[in-house]
Amino acid sequence: MTQRTFIRPLQGIIPPMITPLLGENELDIPGIENMVSHLLRGGVHGIFVLGTTGECTNISYGLRRDLIRKTCEMVQGRVPVLVGITDTSVEESISLAQAAQAAGADAVVAAPPYYFGLGQPELEVYFRRLADALPLPLFLYNMPSHTKTMISQEVVMKLSEHDNIYGLKDSSANAVYFNSMVYALRNRSDFSLLVGPEEMMAASVLMGGHGGVSGGANMFPGLYVDLYQAAKDRDMEKVLELQEMAMEISANIYNLGTYGSSYLKGLKAAVSSLGLCDGYVASPMESFPDDQKRMIAQKVRSLKAFKFYGAGAKNINPEYFK
Amino acid sequence: MTQRTFIRPLQGIIPPMITPLLGENELDIPGIENMVSHLLRGGVHGIFVLGTTGECTNISYGLRRDLIRKTCEMVQGRVPVLVGITDTSVEESISLAQAAQAAGADAVVAAPPYYFGLGQPELEVYFRRLADALPLPLFLYNMPSHTKTMISQEVVMKLSEHDNIYGLKDSSANAVYFNSMVYALRNRSDFSLLVGPEEMMAASVLMGGHGGVSGGANMFPGLYVDLYQAAKDRDMEKVLELQEMAMEISANIYNLGTYGSSYLKGLKAAVSSLGLCDGYVASPMESFPDDQKRMIAQKVRSLKAFKFYGAGAKNINPEYFK
Amino acid sequence: MTQRTFIRPLQGIIPPMITPLLGENELDIPGIENMVSHLLRGGVHGIFVLGTTGECTNISYGLRRDLIRKTCEMVQGRVPVLVGITDTSVEESISLAQAAQAAGADAVVAAPPYYFGLGQPELEVYFRRLADALPLPLFLYNMPSHTKTMISQEVVMKLSEHDNIYGLKDSSANAVYFNSMVYALRNRSDFSLLVGPEEMMAASVLMGGHGGVSGGANMFPGLYVDLYQAAKDRDMEKVLELQEMAMEISANIYNLGTYGSSYLKGLKAAVSSLGLCDGYVASPMESFPDDQKRMIAQKVRSLKAFKFYGAGAKNINPEYFK
Amino acid sequence: MTQRTFIRPLQGIIPPMITPLLGENELDIPGIENMVSHLLRGGVHGIFVLGTTGECTNISYGLRRDLIRKTCEMVQGRVPVLVGITDTSVEESISLAQAAQAAGADAVVAAPPYYFGLGQPELEVYFRRLADALPLPLFLYNMPSHTKTMISQEVVMKLSEHDNIYGLKDSSANAVYFNSMVYALRNRSDFSLLVGPEEMMAASVLMGGHGGVSGGANMFPGLYVDLYQAAKDRDMEKVLELQEMAMEISANIYNLGTYGSSYLKGLKAAVSSLGLCDGYVASPMESFPDDQKRMIAQKVRSLKAFKFYGAGAKNINPEYFK
Repeated sequence: MTQRTFIRPLQGIIPPMITPLLGENELDIPGIENMVSHLLRGGVHGIFVLGTTGECTNISYGLRRDLIRKTCEMVQGRVPVLVGITDTSVEESISLAQAAQAAGADAVVAAPPYYFGLGQPELEVYFRRLADALPLPLFLYNMPSHTKTMISQEVVMKLSEHDNIYGLKDSSANAVYFNSMVYALRNRSDFSLLVGPEEMMAASVLMGGHGGVSGGANMFPGLYVDLYQAAKDRDMEKVLELQEMAMEISANIYNLGTYGSSYLKGLKAAVSSLGLCDGYVASPMESFPDDQKRMIAQKVRSLKAFKFYGAGAKNINPEYFK
Repeated sequence: MTQRTFIRPLQGIIPPMITPLLGENELDIPGIENMVSHLLRGGVHGIFVLGTTGECTNISYGLRRDLIRKTCEMVQGRVPVLVGITDTSVEESISLAQAAQAAGADAVVAAPPYYFGLGQPELEVYFRRLADALPLPLFLYNMPSHTKTMISQEVVMKLSEHDNIYGLKDSSANAVYFNSMVYALRNRSDFSLLVGPEEMMAASVLMGGHGGVSGGANMFPGLYVDLYQAAKDRDMEKVLELQEMAMEISANIYNLGTYGSSYLKGLKAAVSSLGLCDGYVASPMESFPDDQKRMIAQKVRSLKAFKFYGAGAKNINPEYFK
Repeated sequence: MTQRTFIRPLQGIIPPMITPLLGENELDIPGIENMVSHLLRGGVHGIFVLGTTGECTNISYGLRRDLIRKTCEMVQGRVPVLVGITDTSVEESISLAQAAQAAGADAVVAAPPYYFGLGQPELEVYFRRLADALPLPLFLYNMPSHTKTMISQEVVMKLSEHDNIYGLKDSSANAVYFNSMVYALRNRSDFSLLVGPEEMMAASVLMGGHGGVSGGANMFPGLYVDLYQAAKDRDMEKVLELQEMAMEISANIYNLGTYGSSYLKGLKAAVSSLGLCDGYVASPMESFPDDQKRMIAQKVRSLKAFKFYGAGAKNINPEYFK
Repeated sequence: MTQRTFIRPLQGIIPPMITPLLGENELDIPGIENMVSHLLRGGVHGIFVLGTTGECTNISYGLRRDLIRKTCEMVQGRVPVLVGITDTSVEESISLAQAAQAAGADAVVAAPPYYFGLGQPELEVYFRRLADALPLPLFLYNMPSHTKTMISQEVVMKLSEHDNIYGLKDSSANAVYFNSMVYALRNRSDFSLLVGPEEMMAASVLMGGHGGVSGGANMFPGLYVDLYQAAKDRDMEKVLELQEMAMEISANIYNLGTYGSSYLKGLKAAVSSLGLCDGYVASPMESFPDDQKRMIAQKVRSLKAFKFYGAGAKNINPEYFK
């Protein structure tokens, strides 16, 4: 297969697709099909599988490979597919990247190894080696809440010179860090700066960022695509109108329950309530119990975003209203 | 003295004024006069003394009282004066607030107690008690890097109902947190949401924040005032032009040396190189050695901001170029 | 007043005395008298006021001075009195140390400044300056849970060469750190290595440490004195018998409620239930409510330590059994 | 294969065997044979493969399986073999445990999933599920520096009731935590409490722990076996003599270089200098450069432990002295 190329810098909304599951070790195949169609209909600029939102580290390698293949099959090259290969073992990361290439994916994404904490020079060596060995372009993934380590600005700057490193996805939520990167890389129009948290996506695009890996786009891809476009167009009126919809989602869907798992549980319950796929959450986390699923389903239907962007959903999952 | 009132929500640029010192326990009185004039000439909307940038916790209580008095005397009510009363002892916070009131200050600012880590319900009780006992309005100060604790959104929401709590200064650099506050308090036009880090001030104002406590305004107050105004006016062209100047400052002045102290040492050296006041840094930190001071002075003079906003400086401190 | 000297290394049980309070800004003077008598009757080898257990950072400077004076008056030189001077302002630390010297105290104890986080070289400079300026010998206090910073082994080693630095109190609970210090300083018979948490006191003395700053000694000083002696004598039978009593206290008295404040609240309620002093806890913490005080009082009376070491208590506080 | 049983509680020295590697994805098979012989000759009470010291998370799953098989083959049931199955994916943990059972291993060891941080109730559910599904007994592994989460005492207590959970390996270095466990489980003579850091092994055995997973035993197994026995026998004279040897190792071998990787790099270089196996360190870490290897080799030969326990080594690796 000839490697397709995508335009650099990669821009826009590249949702971290949830991984539709029927059980601990079983993909929800029709769910994947629905999700891909749903996202593409919403106008997204790429699809990122096996990110944190995709429960990357929690599912078996077999499933990860199947998911990559299935997603690429469905996408058929219409948008770039990015594949998370974050791992503690370089061998496993490379092996997954090879599977991604074979399936026709366009790029891979890797956060720092997350068991042993590495020093900054060790991080640089690690990413350099990885980028050398990979058959696909690499996006760095800054995710300190999960990996314990920031990739320092200095290390990103050095790595940005590597031929096979195409960008940075920053999920630190630290706007000083992100804006410092935008400034430091202001002359590097090929290096993509994407922001993780959707709550700060519009602002980061206004200030010079290239787009977002917005989890909420699993529910309402059109909302984040429009918000991104409004920010690019500097249409502040529209930005603020859509930002309010995005914040309503954040405030209502991601904060039920306790612990860091609330975001993922809420998002999967919401997507499932829209009839897009099963809402099973893999170990070591768990799906919400039924009453909380119903609560999420009701909240979803009362969102402004549902009124304006809910048409993309297949149909409401009756399971949630029993 | 009758308490003046200021318009709510407090908006604009309220610089965290550095504390001009001649030595470990000696204020630089002409320096304070210069700084106040310099800030007011730059058009700031308030002055905040004894913030983190003001080395609040590092100088003696006697000096803190003298600084409050001297600053209020100089400001003469032209803009609101906010006074940091962050302390581990409630008694000392209240006592400082009384001194602030007596001197004619307008409000006080308090971060969580920073020795014992408190749970969120304990934080709520603490701030409620404090607000009840204070003779001046209180601004909450979220500063997790120094206090070990975020003030949770839930606790801020509850405290925002207190009659004597007027706003929040957030220095977490976490844009998700800040934007969540903007959304949660969207109907509370009296409650002020100010952001600490200047690198994210413009974006936060664009998204609905009320202004910034920008440390760089000690050097170039006009820059941040203009940047704030451009953001308020949604003049994106100008925002980006001025943001680049702000980021140049951040990238060049705050990162010499190592450790968290680089910001303060760099800022004080820069202000001092502009001839505004002495650059002495109190224990437990230290001023930069001479060669690094010279380096900072040269960097200051090569900043775009110096060209456009440096006229406010008194004159270049010849000490730095020996 | 001629400075008394104490034998180096300082050894044994030096309890971190709780600060008896009647209210937010009022000492319980008879309580202080009781506590000092109680501790001395229990055979302690020193008394440490204004440690973390003494709510050092939470009470006003006026109260701190009064407490130092009163304690020294009561102790009358029978054992060394150590005074906590931990502060973010060097000036205030020195000023407190001068008050301690004037009152006749024997040494001071300081943790790193706890607002601005310092790098290790900055910590070394800080402690060196402090030790130079102090009128009394200094013990270093490693307390990373509260100060955010470990004092590295390397820095302790350098500081141990300073004429006015007499020892280290380590409250990190990290046995690797403590044992590394014991090894590194094995030829420094003058430098005292004391451990904070009473749960590891016996083991650390067995392995070569010099004693403990055991909070539980506020309740049952004799228990910890005997446990220390058994460990020094290598009487493992007795060590294990007494260790079990110490662990029963830890498991039952310090874990009621949530948050880090459980330890202090539980300890003060327990001491108060023994009729030794009032149990008021200063802001930003709070005393337990009455039902929890009663629960603590009942637990205290069912402890094995109460049976064997409770005679030292004045008499049971009837307030707790209403 | 019939499952052997081992005596509960598992006691003694169960070294976390380093993983001998020739390269990124190649086991050093003669090295494994040497290591197993070396450890058994040293009198260890078990062997733990794929712990943190075994670079568990850094090597591919294929290699992990080969290592398990090879080790079990060599050990031939002479001591229990424990296998680390720590993973973020439950499926992969179970699959590894099945391989361990098939190879004839005796038990498995799992730390909390280390990418998503779990709340305590989530941890409990996770370990319960895992223990239910495993074909071998499970030891819990508390390793907060790498997994971001302590397993709380409360959760350990609940899990200790599970039929298939046999013990806890605690690598927190927190002696308060460990001693609290010893106290809380004082009536559970079947539940094994093993401590990770060798610097606190002797003390923890003196206080009632069951043994240690001492990394230094890869170099000098006999030293730690003797130290364990001396502590069990309460022979304090001998404990202190051997503890000093153990601390000399810790101070000289584990602290060359910076970052958390110093321990592993130093240990592997030391073992390799003894001629036991190749010292290759897998990504994302790296072996020391040659000059530092030579430095380690010289230090090893000057250790007291080398004089008394070095005979077990095959012969000095001449590579290190070129």
